Amino acid sequence: MSETNTKVLFKSVPEGAATVDNFDVVSEPFDLEAASAALTENKVLLKITWLSVDPYMRGRMRKADGPKSYSLPFSIGEPFAGHGVGIVVKSKSPKYVEGDAVVGFIPWGNYVTVSGAAITRKINIPGVPDLPHETYLGLLGMPSFTAYVGLIVLGKPKAGETLFVSAAAGAVGQVVGQIGKRLGLRVVGSAGSDEKVNLLVTKFGFDAAFNYNKHTVIREKLAELCPNGIDIYFENVGGATLDAVFTLMNVHGRIPMCGMISQYNGAGYGIKNLGAVISKRITIQGFIQSDYLADHNDAFFKWMFEHGLDGTFAYEQTVANGIENIPNAFIGMMEGKNVGKQLIKL
Amino acid sequence: MSETNTKVLFKSVPEGAATVDNFDVVSEPFDLEAASAALTENKVLLKITWLSVDPYMRGRMRKADGPKSYSLPFSIGEPFAGHGVGIVVKSKSPKYVEGDAVVGFIPWGNYVTVSGAAITRKINIPGVPDLPHETYLGLLGMPSFTAYVGLIVLGKPKAGETLFVSAAAGAVGQVVGQIGKRLGLRVVGSAGSDEKVNLLVTKFGFDAAFNYNKHTVIREKLAELCPNGIDIYFENVGGATLDAVFTLMNVHGRIPMCGMISQYNGAGYGIKNLGAVISKRITIQGFIQSDYLADHNDAFFKWMFEHGLDGTFAYEQTVANGIENIPNAFIGMMEGKNVGKQLIKL
Repeated sequence: MSETNTKVLFKSVPEGAATVDNFDVVSEPFDLEAASAALTENKVLLKITWLSVDPYMRGRMRKADGPKSYSLPFSIGEPFAGHGVGIVVKSKSPKYVEGDAVVGFIPWGNYVTVSGAAITRKINIPGVPDLPHETYLGLLGMPSFTAYVGLIVLGKPKAGETLFVSAAAGAVGQVVGQIGKRLGLRVVGSAGSDEKVNLLVTKFGFDAAFNYNKHTVIREKLAELCPNGIDIYFENVGGATLDAVFTLMNVHGRIPMCGMISQYNGAGYGIKNLGAVISKRITIQGFIQSDYLADHNDAFFKWMFEHGLDGTFAYEQTVANGIENIPNAFIGMMEGKNVGKQLIKL
Repeated sequence: MSETNTKVLFKSVPEGAATVDNFDVVSEPFDLEAASAALTENKVLLKITWLSVDPYMRGRMRKADGPKSYSLPFSIGEPFAGHGVGIVVKSKSPKYVEGDAVVGFIPWGNYVTVSGAAITRKINIPGVPDLPHETYLGLLGMPSFTAYVGLIVLGKPKAGETLFVSAAAGAVGQVVGQIGKRLGLRVVGSAGSDEKVNLLVTKFGFDAAFNYNKHTVIREKLAELCPNGIDIYFENVGGATLDAVFTLMNVHGRIPMCGMISQYNGAGYGIKNLGAVISKRITIQGFIQSDYLADHNDAFFKWMFEHGLDGTFAYEQTVANGIENIPNAFIGMMEGKNVGKQLIKL
C-alpha cells in the first residue's frame, strides 16, 4: 500500500526574519507496510493529525556552531520537530498499542517513527474528557502550560492586583489573561491590531487593552490603564514595552519573562529603567516551561480540567490546513498575523 | 555645662553628583543638663561616637515631591540621618540606662535625642564579644548584612560555582567576596583602581580581579577570569558591566541586585542583553536589606560571630575624623576614593 509522506526540513538559517526559502517541503512515496515491518524495539509509528508551530522555534533555526541556547539548533537537511498529536499505526513499545492517540515531541511529517520516550501523554484514556486532538496542542498545550507556570507558579498572584500581559492575543497571552481574571486580578493587555484588542476585551474578558502600534507612547497609555500600578508583568515582547513597565511596577512586583518576540530577529533596543528593579525590589524570573513539567504538569491539567473546560473559557486558534502550509503559517505567526494559537491540521 | 553640638543638615538637592554646597554644617552651644532635663517619655539622649555614610543616601537627597523610592527623601533644613553608634547620656526609655552603648538609625549630630524605637541593638551586653563601636557599623553593620542577604539568602550559592562581584572593594563587596570564599566559590571582583584590585586578591582572598578603568572591554576580561561562566553576579554597578555579565551567565544563574552606583547620578546606559534572562532562566532579585531584617538578622549575627570574627576575615574601612568632615567623606565615597567601608569618628 503506497501513500505519500510529506516532510518539512530545515533548509537554511534565516538572516533576520525567516522566509519560505529556509524551509524544504519534500514529498516521497511511503510504504506503510514496509515501515511497520521495519519498526525496531521501543519504537512507534505514528500517523500525525495535528502539529503545533510556536515562536520559540525561530531560536532553533540557527547555526549548529552558533551561540548556545536553551534548545538545540535544528539540523540542516533534517525535519523540524515540535509538539504534535498522532495515532499509533504500529507499536513496538510495550506502553502503546495500535489506535492510541498520543501527544509528543515529534518530527514534521505525515508519518513518523519516534521512540516511545518522545511520547508525553496518551489522550484517549478512561476517566479523561474526550477532547478533540488539537485541544492538546491548544488549550491544554505547551503555550497554556507556559501561561500557567508564568502566572501562577512565578507570578504569585493575589486577588486585587494588576496584571499586564504583552502579546496578549497570542497563544500564551490569551490564557494568561483568562487565568488572571479567574484569580481576581485586574488584567490589562497589549496587542498589535485593533481587531486583537477588541478580542481581548470582548472575548477574553480583559479589563482593558491597547494597540501598541497606535499608542506608541506606551508608558502614558499603560499608566492610564493601570491606575494602581502593575504588580505582575507577564513579559512576552521586551524592548520599549518592558522599559515602560519598569517605571510603573509596584514595590515587590514580579516579572515572569517568557519571551521577547520583538528581539528574536536581532533588534537592539537598550533598556534604561532596569534600576527600578532595586528600588522596587522586583523579581525577574526568566523561564522555560519544560523546566517545570515534572513538578507542575499534573497540577496544570487539574486546573485546566476544572476551570479551562467549564465552557466560560475562550480559546482562539488559527488553523492552517496541510503540512505543506507550515512555512507560510510559521512566517505569518512571527509577523503577528495569527490570532491565538497557530496550529496545523494534517 | 555648655558644650558645642555640631549637626549636618540637608541644604539643597544636588544636580548630578553631590557637592559640599548641598550640606550645611552648623555648630551651636549645647547645654547637656538642660537637654537631659527636657527629655520626654520613651526618649533617649545619645552622645554619638561613630556615624556611617553610605551610597544609598544619595538617593534620599532628592526633592520631597519627586519620584517615590524605597526610602523617604531627606528634609531640607533638617539633619541627615543614618546608622550610628552612641552612648546613652540620659534615658526616659525603660529599655535603656545611662552608659549603654547602642546602635540605631539616628540624625547626624554630636548629641541627639531619639525615640527608643530608633535604637536597634544594645552592644555592650553579657555573652556577646566586646567589640569596638565601629565594628557595628562596619563588619557587623548594614553593608555586611546586605552582603549576607544578597549572597546567602538570594544568591543560593553552591560550592564550586563562580561568583562575580562588582564594586568589590566597597563596603558590601569586600564582605560578599569573603563570604563567597568561605562557601567554596570561585570569587572574581572588579574595582576602579589597581590599588583596590591588589587588595581584593592579596587581602580579601579573591581568586581574580580586574580594574574596569583599565580593561574597558569588560566582557573579554570577565570571560578570561570566569572560564566556567558566572553562576552568581552580585550587582552593585549596573551599566556596561551588567550588560557584559548577561552574556556570560550560566543557566539558572542568579543576580541579586543591590545597587547601581554608576546610575545614581542619572546616567543613561541602555542594557541590550536582557534577553539572556529567558534563554538562561536567570533570576534577578532586586532587594533592600531592611526587608530582610526581621527574618535574617539573627542568622547574620550568628554567621558573622562564627566566621567573620575568627581572625581570618579581613575588613577595610576608611575613617574620617570629626562630624564636620562628613560632606567631603560622602563626596569622596561617591567618587570611589574610599577603600572599604566609609566611617566617621566623632
